[in-house]
Amino acid sequence: MKKHRNITLLGSTGSIGCSTLEVLSHLKEYFSVSSLSTNRNIDLLEEQIRRYRPKVVAVLNEERSAELRRRVGTLTDVLSGENGLLEIAGRDDSDIVLNALVGFSGLRPTLRAIETGKDIAIANKETLVVAGDLVTRMAREKGVRLLPVDSEHSAILQCLQGEDYASVTRLIITASGGPFLNYATERLQSVTVADALNHPTWKMGPKITIDSATLMNKGLEVIEACRLFNLSPDKIQVLIHPQSIIHSLVEFGDGSIKAQLGMPDMRLPIQYALMFPDRPSAPFKKIDFKTIDSLTFREPDTTRFPCLPLAFEALRMGGTAPAVLNAANEVAVQLFLEERIPFTAIAEIAGRALDAHKPVDDCTLDQIIAHDRLTRNAILHNFHPSASLPYSNTVGQKAAL
Amino acid sequence: MKKHRNITLLGSTGSIGCSTLEVLSHLKEYFSVSSLSTNRNIDLLEEQIRRYRPKVVAVLNEERSAELRRRVGTLTDVLSGENGLLEIAGRDDSDIVLNALVGFSGLRPTLRAIETGKDIAIANKETLVVAGDLVTRMAREKGVRLLPVDSEHSAILQCLQGEDYASVTRLIITASGGPFLNYATERLQSVTVADALNHPTWKMGPKITIDSATLMNKGLEVIEACRLFNLSPDKIQVLIHPQSIIHSLVEFGDGSIKAQLGMPDMRLPIQYALMFPDRPSAPFKKIDFKTIDSLTFREPDTTRFPCLPLAFEALRMGGTAPAVLNAANEVAVQLFLEERIPFTAIAEIAGRALDAHKPVDDCTLDQIIAHDRLTRNAILHNFHPSASLPYSNTVGQKAAL
Repeated sequence: MKKHRNITLLGSTGSIGCSTLEVLSHLKEYFSVSSLSTNRNIDLLEEQIRRYRPKVVAVLNEERSAELRRRVGTLTDVLSGENGLLEIAGRDDSDIVLNALVGFSGLRPTLRAIETGKDIAIANKETLVVAGDLVTRMAREKGVRLLPVDSEHSAILQCLQGEDYASVTRLIITASGGPFLNYATERLQSVTVADALNHPTWKMGPKITIDSATLMNKGLEVIEACRLFNLSPDKIQVLIHPQSIIHSLVEFGDGSIKAQLGMPDMRLPIQYALMFPDRPSAPFKKIDFKTIDSLTFREPDTTRFPCLPLAFEALRMGGTAPAVLNAANEVAVQLFLEERIPFTAIAEIAGRALDAHKPVDDCTLDQIIAHDRLTRNAILHNFHPSASLPYSNTVGQKAAL
Repeated sequence: MKKHRNITLLGSTGSIGCSTLEVLSHLKEYFSVSSLSTNRNIDLLEEQIRRYRPKVVAVLNEERSAELRRRVGTLTDVLSGENGLLEIAGRDDSDIVLNALVGFSGLRPTLRAIETGKDIAIANKETLVVAGDLVTRMAREKGVRLLPVDSEHSAILQCLQGEDYASVTRLIITASGGPFLNYATERLQSVTVADALNHPTWKMGPKITIDSATLMNKGLEVIEACRLFNLSPDKIQVLIHPQSIIHSLVEFGDGSIKAQLGMPDMRLPIQYALMFPDRPSAPFKKIDFKTIDSLTFREPDTTRFPCLPLAFEALRMGGTAPAVLNAANEVAVQLFLEERIPFTAIAEIAGRALDAHKPVDDCTLDQIIAHDRLTRNAILHNFHPSASLPYSNTVGQKAAL
């Protein structure tokens, strides 16, 4: 019997956060919710507070934090801002942190949780993309576990159970291909935000859904897999599998392949990360092979979806390059969601940022953060040339970093 | 580094035997061949002797044994008959026995190998079908490993590595469906031996190829899986998967499914059984997903293929019932290969034998052997009513057993 643990859930009002709370509601004998956080959604956070009774919560937005404090009174402590987030990530009364924050903002709380010796269930892949070497090294030093929540990396971890990592010859990461799998290049130029948010198999938040449509999500997952499983990029292959039933595969030296299958439901990999390596029974829908017509596979089209080769390129460049690719992509996705650039401009912006970058090897956290900001500002400056952006004055200092 | 081991290969001139010798030729640093055996094929055995230099061989057929002894002189000891087979199964200078004998004849050598403390790689599924409880109990007592060579059971063992057996909710054994997957009942009545021997995905010996065409092979595998993995029949499902790429799947309590995939090549599961749980690199062809059109699944048609439900029925009956089903099937397959009965009569004969049987629970080896012979003789008597068959006088004693 596993010991009862206290869990901190960063980003509890997003898609992964809500799914995690559903999972926790049938794992009550194993977990108590000790802290929650949101960016701005205090209505939902208030509901979660009344239901799960965390000791403390953090709200990134200061005004909303104050408003929530008025609403919940003495029911729970309400912290605010990035400091609040860092505080709940590092509290002594928590044993495990599930990080479901979106984008680069997840990095510092991950590091704080590792520093304070907590296992991390990591849904925030950007953490591992921008600072994977740093994060995995620190986790090894602190003896904490980094447990993937992404369905693909969860599949790989499941396939690797009981196997010798040295015998792995190939990780095959599957991709649904997103909503535009069969669109010609010309048609991609005119797709709308609504089109891109309409994912064929997975229901997810907007950032990752757009990343799935460009295949940048798969590229980020390739980088994440290299970091998590300590493998070189040439051992990683991406395979389009539109049915999203096989979540990834691992090939071994003897030619055998192991695969993990499941319904496209994030609750399964979330539970696996939380209970690893145990598998208590769960009420999730199981696969009924009668309903599966066929499972198909094809190579990704890197011409129509250039974000995927960009990720491999960033891995080859190394150092700060993945952080720059990620920053450019985060900004470009936001611009696309604001309908300020066409869909195909996301890859163009990311590609130009990578082309212009001279990576810093063996980079520190500060260097990563600086290049993240430089990249964001350089891109945004083209859209708000007159705006006074924080750190925009550092653009000219790029060569000095 | 694994220690070097001496291997005994029972049935070295059959399909599995030849594949095993191919596997051993790239695993020379791990294995020396200490003994080989054949039923009658002394030409091939002589070649194998000159190439692999075993200390001793056994030839079941006495005349051929004498002929081989003349041919090889002092190169190797040549034993004969069932005693010769039992002697090589139990020799002190062997560490592991791969049993690739066909049918019931594999049982006694398996038991001898276990008694003498050797790990067994078992391709002879009939051993586990007729005396699975006995064999697995004895293996536990002697602390020896029973390692499956069948691709399906190898797949299951691979999927179970690193997992808690108690969390298994379902084993899904895949079946190609054989050459007659899409034949209507009427057409099945007139299929020829040549048709039945023409398996769509696997190249195998005649007995197992016919069993694959009737789906009795899958039924025997269901019984084998129950014994090997100590699971009740209601946790085992058979799924038709015509491409023979996914070799079987395991479902766990959390709804996750793990599958093992590989090209249809017996050398892979043979190597896995011999090297378990290690995976040294091997020159077998790897899966290229570009060449895979799609993977499909469907429920087996138990009306057209009644041998499959017969196996579940034998499991429910328990005791000697699986031995009777196996004996009836072995005789019926032989009669079909001799073109003395139509294809559909195999299932009829097996079904009648099971219907007529009152199983003996907690049966001894002697009771199993007696019921095996009774069943064979009762069927053969209908085809050779005047023949003097060994043990045919015991038919009338059935009720007394």
